[in-house]
Amino acid sequence: MLLGIDIGGTKIAAVIGTPEGEIVARQSEATNAEATPDAVLTRLNGLAAAALKEAGATKKSLTGIGISCGGPLDTQTGTIYRPPNLPKWEAVPVRTWFEEKYPGVPVFLDNDANATALAEWRFGAGQGAKNLIFLTMGTGIGGGIILDGRLYRGTNDLAGEVGHQTILINGPLCGCGKHGCLEALASGPAIARLAKEALQYGRGKKLIAEAGGNRDNITARHVVEAAKLGDSLSIQVLVEAGTYMGIGLANLIQILNPERIILGTIAVHAGDIILDPIRKAIAEYSWDRSAAVCTIVAAELGDRAQDLAAVSLAIPQLS
Amino acid sequence: MLLGIDIGGTKIAAVIGTPEGEIVARQSEATNAEATPDAVLTRLNGLAAAALKEAGATKKSLTGIGISCGGPLDTQTGTIYRPPNLPKWEAVPVRTWFEEKYPGVPVFLDNDANATALAEWRFGAGQGAKNLIFLTMGTGIGGGIILDGRLYRGTNDLAGEVGHQTILINGPLCGCGKHGCLEALASGPAIARLAKEALQYGRGKKLIAEAGGNRDNITARHVVEAAKLGDSLSIQVLVEAGTYMGIGLANLIQILNPERIILGTIAVHAGDIILDPIRKAIAEYSWDRSAAVCTIVAAELGDRAQDLAAVSLAIPQLS
Repeated sequence: MLLGIDIGGTKIAAVIGTPEGEIVARQSEATNAEATPDAVLTRLNGLAAAALKEAGATKKSLTGIGISCGGPLDTQTGTIYRPPNLPKWEAVPVRTWFEEKYPGVPVFLDNDANATALAEWRFGAGQGAKNLIFLTMGTGIGGGIILDGRLYRGTNDLAGEVGHQTILINGPLCGCGKHGCLEALASGPAIARLAKEALQYGRGKKLIAEAGGNRDNITARHVVEAAKLGDSLSIQVLVEAGTYMGIGLANLIQILNPERIILGTIAVHAGDIILDPIRKAIAEYSWDRSAAVCTIVAAELGDRAQDLAAVSLAIPQLS
Repeated sequence: MLLGIDIGGTKIAAVIGTPEGEIVARQSEATNAEATPDAVLTRLNGLAAAALKEAGATKKSLTGIGISCGGPLDTQTGTIYRPPNLPKWEAVPVRTWFEEKYPGVPVFLDNDANATALAEWRFGAGQGAKNLIFLTMGTGIGGGIILDGRLYRGTNDLAGEVGHQTILINGPLCGCGKHGCLEALASGPAIARLAKEALQYGRGKKLIAEAGGNRDNITARHVVEAAKLGDSLSIQVLVEAGTYMGIGLANLIQILNPERIILGTIAVHAGDIILDPIRKAIAEYSWDRSAAVCTIVAAELGDRAQDLAAVSLAIPQLS
């Protein structure tokens, strides 16, 4: 049995899973990000004990523990360094913390994008691929890169920050402080911003209706829903964001020649409404011979993604 | 002993080298790209025999053969597919050809950018690095990528085409047919083009003098030489090209988090005149934490690069 620990800004969870990707038990609760890291970890340990009990398993049956969290973090030392949504977590040695609670069980920490890439690769849309890139496409655009059948982490765990390649020199300000990043052009907040800007021209009635009549409330989710109802402004916004996304993916294709690119959240919800412009931009901005070997697909794991991500970290990698 | 075979559009060479990077013997002549591939290979085999003799070695002493050539090519089957400078080489099975001449000796084919990356990694500016990217910076901008201590080739040998990431949407036409590629903004021909365009304003007297008084003859080499003499227009052109190059490298840093980036030809000739604007752009367009672990250096192997590139392909990789 494997223990997966998911540490998020709003929710913490402990799950028991198998190396084959079955989730046997699951316990979760609100994070309370204002509490001390030690208090959160202590509650997580309680959730883990409850999950083990729910699974009818014991500590001794565990062969590995995977911990998934937002970065920055250090996979070598197993330390979390103040993720944006956990501002109190300054250099928290989570791996050591769990190693002390579970003597003899190997503990692995990695960021959520890498963990989800592993999960989609083992159990979802990435199965069978040797070279793949997984991209979150939600609040941010993060990436996990698997090359020659191994997760590639980079020199100090910062590989895969594909959302912060520059797509538009002097483009809109990104949350990271740079300008014109892919994330500032194709993430959920970017899509919402593009839609609000476009609304100035008086179009998008269905979109405003989706947002409950208040244009200030518009989110990417509303844009996707309105686009599905045929709202032309919303479709146009997704074509624009999808084109930027396609240019970013074309760059990845030129640099890494992957065989599969898997897109999360927004691509899952919007489907071909955004995948079509993405694929069209890839055809325009990358080489035919490189694009020909690479399929662009939406993520498959859905609600199971986070649980399987944490569990996947506990599965030994061939390397 | 190792045999290195270098197949270029203007020159072919056979060298005998050691796994420690010593070149013991070297034979080369003009390619005659108009001849049939078989005729060229037969002459190369003659050069190899002469190089063996020069080295006082025999066929039996060879433990590997490395063949470096421009792509496209297939490293799995050892086949060369019509590189731009060898238009008659349609699906030439060079590995099989040499395997038949040297029974029992393993033969490895790879493109020149990958081969040079391996050579700089083993013997030059890349020594000791686990994650590095080597970029040619001459007529074209090609790349070789070494990650976690292994050459990464991609799904169909097209990884490392870093010169064909899009830096400027709707930018100048690239030789590859796309627009705004890094290669169209920072390669030798791009630098010459930028300089010629800038000359319209009546500046650059030293540059025109370097080009023998004829502005139509201006090459990147002239721009670099004039810049070294203090020609402000030439310096300005190198700052512009270097800024684009820096943006491209910043993207690579965000995506791959390398610890070293090695730049060829123009960076070697121009030194800090172009490396300074490159480093400045990297500081602006990548994250501090990622840029902090990555050093940007000029290639070190100089005239020995091509020979050591071919030889490096014959050295077994740990993988």
